[in-house]
Amino acid sequence: MKQPISLQQSIVTYQNGTFCSKDDDIVREVPLTIYVNNEEFATMVCSPSYFEEMVIGFLASEGILFFIDDIKMMDIDEDTGFAYVTLTKNRVKHPSYYAKRVIGSCCGKSRQFYFHNDTVTSKTSLTTTTITAHQCIHLMENMQQNSFSFKQTGGVHNAAICTPHELLISRADIGRHNALDKLYGYCLLKRISVRDKILVFSGRLSSEVLTKAAKIGVGIVLSKSAPTDLAVKLADDLNITAVGFIRGTSFNIYSHPHRIVS
Amino acid sequence: MKQPISLQQSIVTYQNGTFCSKDDDIVREVPLTIYVNNEEFATMVCSPSYFEEMVIGFLASEGILFFIDDIKMMDIDEDTGFAYVTLTKNRVKHPSYYAKRVIGSCCGKSRQFYFHNDTVTSKTSLTTTTITAHQCIHLMENMQQNSFSFKQTGGVHNAAICTPHELLISRADIGRHNALDKLYGYCLLKRISVRDKILVFSGRLSSEVLTKAAKIGVGIVLSKSAPTDLAVKLADDLNITAVGFIRGTSFNIYSHPHRIVS
Repeated sequence: MKQPISLQQSIVTYQNGTFCSKDDDIVREVPLTIYVNNEEFATMVCSPSYFEEMVIGFLASEGILFFIDDIKMMDIDEDTGFAYVTLTKNRVKHPSYYAKRVIGSCCGKSRQFYFHNDTVTSKTSLTTTTITAHQCIHLMENMQQNSFSFKQTGGVHNAAICTPHELLISRADIGRHNALDKLYGYCLLKRISVRDKILVFSGRLSSEVLTKAAKIGVGIVLSKSAPTDLAVKLADDLNITAVGFIRGTSFNIYSHPHRIVS
Repeated sequence: MKQPISLQQSIVTYQNGTFCSKDDDIVREVPLTIYVNNEEFATMVCSPSYFEEMVIGFLASEGILFFIDDIKMMDIDEDTGFAYVTLTKNRVKHPSYYAKRVIGSCCGKSRQFYFHNDTVTSKTSLTTTTITAHQCIHLMENMQQNSFSFKQTGGVHNAAICTPHELLISRADIGRHNALDKLYGYCLLKRISVRDKILVFSGRLSSEVLTKAAKIGVGIVLSKSAPTDLAVKLADDLNITAVGFIRGTSFNIYSHPHRIVS
C-alpha cells in the first residue's frame, strides 16, 4: 500500500500578533534499514515513497550492484522500514569504503531514535526559558542579516545560539550539521551552559537536525523552514519547543508551545 | 592562518538572452579527516572555518567526549585537512554506533574524491548532448511546478531526469540524496540510458550531490541554487556541465559551458 508523503497535524500558528490552533500538512520522514545478503548494510531516513527505486539507486551508487539483473530477490516491508536484498554476487567491501549510516537495534529514550548512539547523547530538555513571539522573529532576522557568507555566496546554512534577547554566537557552514557542531564546540570551549539557550537555524528541521539540537542540549529550536513529522515527534518526546516557518511576522509552533508567549 | 570561506572564480552567466564571462564568489567546501587517539574516526566536508569548534562539537555530539577537559591534545592541520585528537579516555565504540563517513586514503580519477568508493563508481561524462538556455530555464520551471509535495509542505528536494525537451521522471524526498537515488533506481529498473540525459535538482550543488550525479552518469546538472568550489572542481574533472542559480530568466554556468547553447 502506498504511504502518504505528508500527514495532517495540529499546530499553533502566530500571525499578525495572534496565536491560533489549526491543522497543517507536515512532510513525513521514515527510517529504512537495508540488508544485503543477510547482512545489515545501511539505514537511511527518507520520504515514504518509491522505496524500491531508492534501494536500487542507493546500492548502485555505492557500487554494490551495477545492473538490475544483479538483484536475485528484493523484499521491502514499508510498514516496519526494512528492505532485504539478495544479490547474485556479494560486492560489499570493508565498511570504510562506504558513506553510510549503520544502525544497531533501536532502543532508548525515544521510540523515534534509529541510531544507538543518539539515544545516549540526546538530552531531554528541562528548561523553563520562555520567549516572546517578537523575540522569535527578531532573533531569526538578526541571524540572517548578520550572515556575511550567505549574502555573498548563497551557499551556506546559518545557526546561532541565543538568549531570548540576543545572539550569543552564530556560525555558517555549507553543511547543516557542521554549523551546529561549530556552535556546540564553541559552547564547550567557552564552558557556556546551553540548557536555557535557544537554537536558531536557517534550514529545515529534519530528525537529524533535531537530534543534533538535543545533543547540544537546547530547549527551544527556531527554524526558518519546514519540519518533518519525525523531527516533531522527537521534539515532543524530548520536551523541546520546535518552531518553523519564521518568515516576516508569522511562524508555526509544532511542539511544546507553552514556551512561546505573547 | 584563517582560510577564506569563498573564492573568486571565472564563470559564464546568462541573463536577458546574453551569455557573458565574469568572476563570481563561490563558497568553499573542504574535507577534514579526524583521528581520535591515533585511529581514523571520520571525515566530514565543511566550510573552512572554526575547525577546532567543529571537531569538538562533532565528537561531543557523537558521545566521544563530554567536557573540554576530556581533550589532552588537539592538533589541526588546516592546509592538509587533518585533525588529531588525543583524549584522556578513549570512548570510541564499535563503528555501528556512529553516524559517520569513514575515509580511506584518497586516490583515483579526481583529486577531489575523499571516499574510496566514489572513485570506483563515479563516471566521467562522454556525452555530446547540448541544451539551450531556454530549455535550462524551462526544465527547472517544469520540475518545480509539477512538485505537489513541495507546494503542500515546503519540505522536500526535487530532482528530475530529463531530455533537453522534457522531464522523463521526477522524484521528491526530504533527503537530497534519496531523491537522486530514486531517480537512479528508476533508470536502472526501466533500463533507461542516462548518459545523454540531464539532471535537474532543486537544491545546492555540494560535492556529495555532484558525486551522486556522476554515479548516475549524467553529463549536465542544472540546479536552482549555489554550487561549492569542490563540486565545481569535481564537475570540471569529470567532464560534467554544472549550471546553478537558475532563477527567472537567468543562470550561471560553472564548468564545461560548451554544452549550453543559445
